[in-house]
Amino acid sequence: MGKRRDGRKLDEMRKIKVTKEYIIYPEGSVLIEIGNTKVICNVTVEDKVPKFLIGKGKGWITAEYNMLPRSTHTRMLRDISKLKKNGRSLEIQRLIGRCLRGAVDLELLGEKTLIVDCDVVQADGGTRTASITGGYIAIKLACNKLLEEGKLEKNPIKNGVVAVSVGIVDEKPMLDLCYEEDSRADVDMNICMTDKGRFLELQGGGEKGDFSKNELIKLMELGEKGCKTLFNVIEEMK
Amino acid sequence: MGKRRDGRKLDEMRKIKVTKEYIIYPEGSVLIEIGNTKVICNVTVEDKVPKFLIGKGKGWITAEYNMLPRSTHTRMLRDISKLKKNGRSLEIQRLIGRCLRGAVDLELLGEKTLIVDCDVVQADGGTRTASITGGYIAIKLACNKLLEEGKLEKNPIKNGVVAVSVGIVDEKPMLDLCYEEDSRADVDMNICMTDKGRFLELQGGGEKGDFSKNELIKLMELGEKGCKTLFNVIEEMK
Amino acid sequence: MGKRRDGRKLDEMRKIKVTKEYIIYPEGSVLIEIGNTKVICNVTVEDKVPKFLIGKGKGWITAEYNMLPRSTHTRMLRDISKLKKNGRSLEIQRLIGRCLRGAVDLELLGEKTLIVDCDVVQADGGTRTASITGGYIAIKLACNKLLEEGKLEKNPIKNGVVAVSVGIVDEKPMLDLCYEEDSRADVDMNICMTDKGRFLELQGGGEKGDFSKNELIKLMELGEKGCKTLFNVIEEMK
Amino acid sequence: MGKRRDGRKLDEMRKIKVTKEYIIYPEGSVLIEIGNTKVICNVTVEDKVPKFLIGKGKGWITAEYNMLPRSTHTRMLRDISKLKKNGRSLEIQRLIGRCLRGAVDLELLGEKTLIVDCDVVQADGGTRTASITGGYIAIKLACNKLLEEGKLEKNPIKNGVVAVSVGIVDEKPMLDLCYEEDSRADVDMNICMTDKGRFLELQGGGEKGDFSKNELIKLMELGEKGCKTLFNVIEEMK
Amino acid sequence: MGKRRDGRKLDEMRKIKVTKEYIIYPEGSVLIEIGNTKVICNVTVEDKVPKFLIGKGKGWITAEYNMLPRSTHTRMLRDISKLKKNGRSLEIQRLIGRCLRGAVDLELLGEKTLIVDCDVVQADGGTRTASITGGYIAIKLACNKLLEEGKLEKNPIKNGVVAVSVGIVDEKPMLDLCYEEDSRADVDMNICMTDKGRFLELQGGGEKGDFSKNELIKLMELGEKGCKTLFNVIEEMK
Amino acid sequence: MGKRRDGRKLDEMRKIKVTKEYIIYPEGSVLIEIGNTKVICNVTVEDKVPKFLIGKGKGWITAEYNMLPRSTHTRMLRDISKLKKNGRSLEIQRLIGRCLRGAVDLELLGEKTLIVDCDVVQADGGTRTASITGGYIAIKLACNKLLEEGKLEKNPIKNGVVAVSVGIVDEKPMLDLCYEEDSRADVDMNICMTDKGRFLELQGGGEKGDFSKNELIKLMELGEKGCKTLFNVIEEMK
Repeated sequence: MGKRRDGRKLDEMRKIKVTKEYIIYPEGSVLIEIGNTKVICNVTVEDKVPKFLIGKGKGWITAEYNMLPRSTHTRMLRDISKLKKNGRSLEIQRLIGRCLRGAVDLELLGEKTLIVDCDVVQADGGTRTASITGGYIAIKLACNKLLEEGKLEKNPIKNGVVAVSVGIVDEKPMLDLCYEEDSRADVDMNICMTDKGRFLELQGGGEKGDFSKNELIKLMELGEKGCKTLFNVIEEMK
Repeated sequence: MGKRRDGRKLDEMRKIKVTKEYIIYPEGSVLIEIGNTKVICNVTVEDKVPKFLIGKGKGWITAEYNMLPRSTHTRMLRDISKLKKNGRSLEIQRLIGRCLRGAVDLELLGEKTLIVDCDVVQADGGTRTASITGGYIAIKLACNKLLEEGKLEKNPIKNGVVAVSVGIVDEKPMLDLCYEEDSRADVDMNICMTDKGRFLELQGGGEKGDFSKNELIKLMELGEKGCKTLFNVIEEMK
Repeated sequence: MGKRRDGRKLDEMRKIKVTKEYIIYPEGSVLIEIGNTKVICNVTVEDKVPKFLIGKGKGWITAEYNMLPRSTHTRMLRDISKLKKNGRSLEIQRLIGRCLRGAVDLELLGEKTLIVDCDVVQADGGTRTASITGGYIAIKLACNKLLEEGKLEKNPIKNGVVAVSVGIVDEKPMLDLCYEEDSRADVDMNICMTDKGRFLELQGGGEKGDFSKNELIKLMELGEKGCKTLFNVIEEMK
Repeated sequence: MGKRRDGRKLDEMRKIKVTKEYIIYPEGSVLIEIGNTKVICNVTVEDKVPKFLIGKGKGWITAEYNMLPRSTHTRMLRDISKLKKNGRSLEIQRLIGRCLRGAVDLELLGEKTLIVDCDVVQADGGTRTASITGGYIAIKLACNKLLEEGKLEKNPIKNGVVAVSVGIVDEKPMLDLCYEEDSRADVDMNICMTDKGRFLELQGGGEKGDFSKNELIKLMELGEKGCKTLFNVIEEMK
Repeated sequence: MGKRRDGRKLDEMRKIKVTKEYIIYPEGSVLIEIGNTKVICNVTVEDKVPKFLIGKGKGWITAEYNMLPRSTHTRMLRDISKLKKNGRSLEIQRLIGRCLRGAVDLELLGEKTLIVDCDVVQADGGTRTASITGGYIAIKLACNKLLEEGKLEKNPIKNGVVAVSVGIVDEKPMLDLCYEEDSRADVDMNICMTDKGRFLELQGGGEKGDFSKNELIKLMELGEKGCKTLFNVIEEMK
Repeated sequence: MGKRRDGRKLDEMRKIKVTKEYIIYPEGSVLIEIGNTKVICNVTVEDKVPKFLIGKGKGWITAEYNMLPRSTHTRMLRDISKLKKNGRSLEIQRLIGRCLRGAVDLELLGEKTLIVDCDVVQADGGTRTASITGGYIAIKLACNKLLEEGKLEKNPIKNGVVAVSVGIVDEKPMLDLCYEEDSRADVDMNICMTDKGRFLELQGGGEKGDFSKNELIKLMELGEKGCKTLFNVIEEMK
């Protein structure tokens, strides 16, 4: 197996660093760093649910994803300057929300909403998957806090949930693409898995290329490997 | 293999109907009906490209997806009433755009933009995949027109592109979910393929459930079957 | 009396076609075609009224008018792209709402709101008057449904209501202007009438020309003729 | 002929007062008072035209109509608080623009835009017609200034233009409705005329009532009388 | 002490004119003129308070500041045209609100909101300080009205409040800058004081220059002088 | 002199920490921490100027201030959710911009714009003054980079610029208020100074109280002390 520009093997994750309780106010707060990618994930607990869930005895999880203007090489305008939520951000925060709802038993959560704010401070590829992983850890912290404070009777976490990106670059399937690899990739895919080894969401494809069933299976195996690494890191943090 | 509420087999598409040149003004126009789902796909050709492509000798394809307020059981507010593009619509139109760019050689297209308006008149599941399929046919019509008028020298279509939805409902993998099935599905996935049998984009997962690699492979095979059916319909239209 | 480019006489309407129950979900749904002009009119019934009517025992009727981006020769941006409801659309939907409220006894309707969505699929002149006529038919369908379902005791329709455009083109007063005539007109006017032969609203004038009282009377007579034709079509549909 | 609450005859205008050069900065500025209705009309001259007119050697006239929040009995929110231009204001400013374009030979104006800001300081009925009349006077002032400064060679004013409201209240047709009359009216209509006694625009109807051709003719005669009074006031101002 | 372009002494205010009950509908209404600067200040009383004050037995005062498009030399776009409240206006209305809350005992006011609309009709420097002074007078009028109508038991005015601008122009500290002076000033400052001679708010500085403590003290003394003049005018109005 | 809740003396700053080059992409980047207040200040250099400066040979400095949703005790909605830039943020970023323009000789800067993004990660009082201080340091870094890269010939920094908050709490003037002190303050003021000991901007006052000239002088002396401390920290960083 060949090497990459930063010396990593094709199936190797970048350095992972998780700082818990990064901000003092939120119910759950994490700074997650995957290589040069840095995302602050803050969880807010609200004692209300969206309109469509009122009175159903169930909770909700929603995410907001945003990049600081200079988290990237060139400055991006803030959404408010254009009066439009960035389309890519919207697509990503919908993905994050779906994946994180897969981590929690919403009936055990009860009529509460968890808002997961994912603010990208520095972006070097894989910000959406880092947000899912960091968001999951922040949700765990928030649930622990609610349990300690007697606001929850039973832990509503039903699955560990993490995500990684994979892709085909220079015809080679590889794990955890940095920005430079991502921008050259023929195919890139985001893979979200539970700690039971099952898939929660696949999303991706190829603007530059297309792919066969066998290539997809190879990408899924790389994804499984990356997700295992992330679960190990989480396990060791305890 | 069991039957479904509407009598279809698990691997059977709904009735497909394509009305070409549905609207008289656009360069390409199609009304596509998949069962009760009806989408008008209109292609507009503009002799300019987005800022990031100016001077690169390449064209662009972008899509807009919108539902009429009463295309669904209950009335949805128009985007303009909320001053926000619907998040689901944005996510969908980004998917449509990516898939349709996979159909066209953008260098052969030259400095032109194809805008594909997908307006859902009646929704009964599978509106995004119907939009991709209908959008592809409308793009073909528009390219033919440009060729006839001498505005293109060579046909820029490089792949046929269609899409179908698949999902796991009542633990059974099935093809082309109608709304009622979609709302009960544990897993649902949108599969976009080329006429060469390769995948362009996968997108989906399970808010209610998760899935294994084998289940995904089964869903991909259903998707392949559905896409073949669509390509047959397109072939017969000629 | 002379002939027009499309062979019609000066006081002749274009071909009128009404498809009832065009969309399956709304309480009342009509596709109205006047020549090449096609408008989908969908009526939604809501069991609430605007703030200013709460507790007054009266209902309300409001309209929304919108054109698909390629309902015209060149593509129009969607309202949401500009974050502004199109000024012309707003002016038109206010007109449609006023005219349709003239069709219904709002006290008999009770504390309900009828929302009339007029979505122009293809525009060739007279879209606002087609929307009024189609909207009226869709309201009738919706009221019939409410009567059948026991949600209304008495039919609240108090007047039949239709509308036509008239204008002075090449110094000749004429009925039911198509786009090409409308764009050359010195004076154009929209005339909304009841089935009792009384006027509900006049709106129009001349950006290019002005007009005398006698010319206005001539235009009103043409309008009366056109409205009678429309009421005949509606009568025959039963 | 009966009397009205404020002692006026049915065909009598309220007191008209025009203060020229009310604001010192605009090219043309007028405070027009019709009874208690007060509107500031300011004309700005810009040396450019809207996109659709560039290079056609013609000018343009556009109007903006706005009410101060407490120009009415209860406070209205400012448009910016709702991020939406008020629908009624939009409808009105489109009317004002159309009527004022009827006053000016746009080719003589050349590639200039006149922006007519109509800001209602106090509203007591007839604000849109006062805006048209005041706007016309302000345009005349602006054109005079342009002629003096040598920025126009020939006066582009081709018609005097004024407007009044008329209506049927308590079954009596009457001229120049104040707010209290307007809110009780069965039919109300805005009539815009030139100083040659021809009509430029009619707009109105009846939400509460409908009307016959003869009633319309009666209203038009009242309108003619009111417009003559306004032209007399303008004549005497010189 | 030198003279200024308009003949004023360095410590001399421009001509002050206050027209009470300028508009007939608001609870308090004032047209304030300071030289060529003209601002309409209208106070609306609402029997409700913002969310954060509900149930606290206290009232609130808020201000909105807006300039008519041609209150200045060149036309400004209306906020609604840009869908953004002008930043300078927002900054100013926050200042006005803070200062005017210093005039009123909010507990005596009870659960009411006073909305102070400051609409600048003509701007020649000092519009924000004129708004504070005019706003204070309009609040007094509104409170008198509420007392007369028995809607307040005790006058909630606790301080007279006025404001003036001061600045350093051509190295000379001076009072009440007109636009021409303001645009050349090295330092300019807005000073809001009570009728007890105490300061409520200072705001200002120097984009072109900086200043020492002694210069600030000199400016404050000029401000005190100007405020006294304003309180004298208010006193004489009674 | 008494002590404060956190043990500080009345004229004592909180702990100051500056992390340079916090983010790798911007031309200048600083994380500034004042006690628990943390602000990321990123400077972007653009080779263009706002419209009003084009062709004048001068540069511009502008700031954007924003708080992360959970930088505070309770979650704040993002601006984009309300489609309105927060009024307090707008007021603050205008202040930051004015103060930072006082640091730079805009003619030496040439036709460049420095955009200073101040993103508050954690807020505990004094975020606007921390933004000014951090923004100044980030501008210095950016100018050094431009000098090294030969994009500037001469250092355009003309003044060191820092800012602190001061206030009167429990009748005691004090320096560098934390959130808890700020929320109880009778008077609070933001003081921006140069390294030459001169004032650039004062802004503040009392919603709860008012103040005399002597109290203001006392506050300014505290401000001078705090600013000296900040300049010492900056000096030692080198």
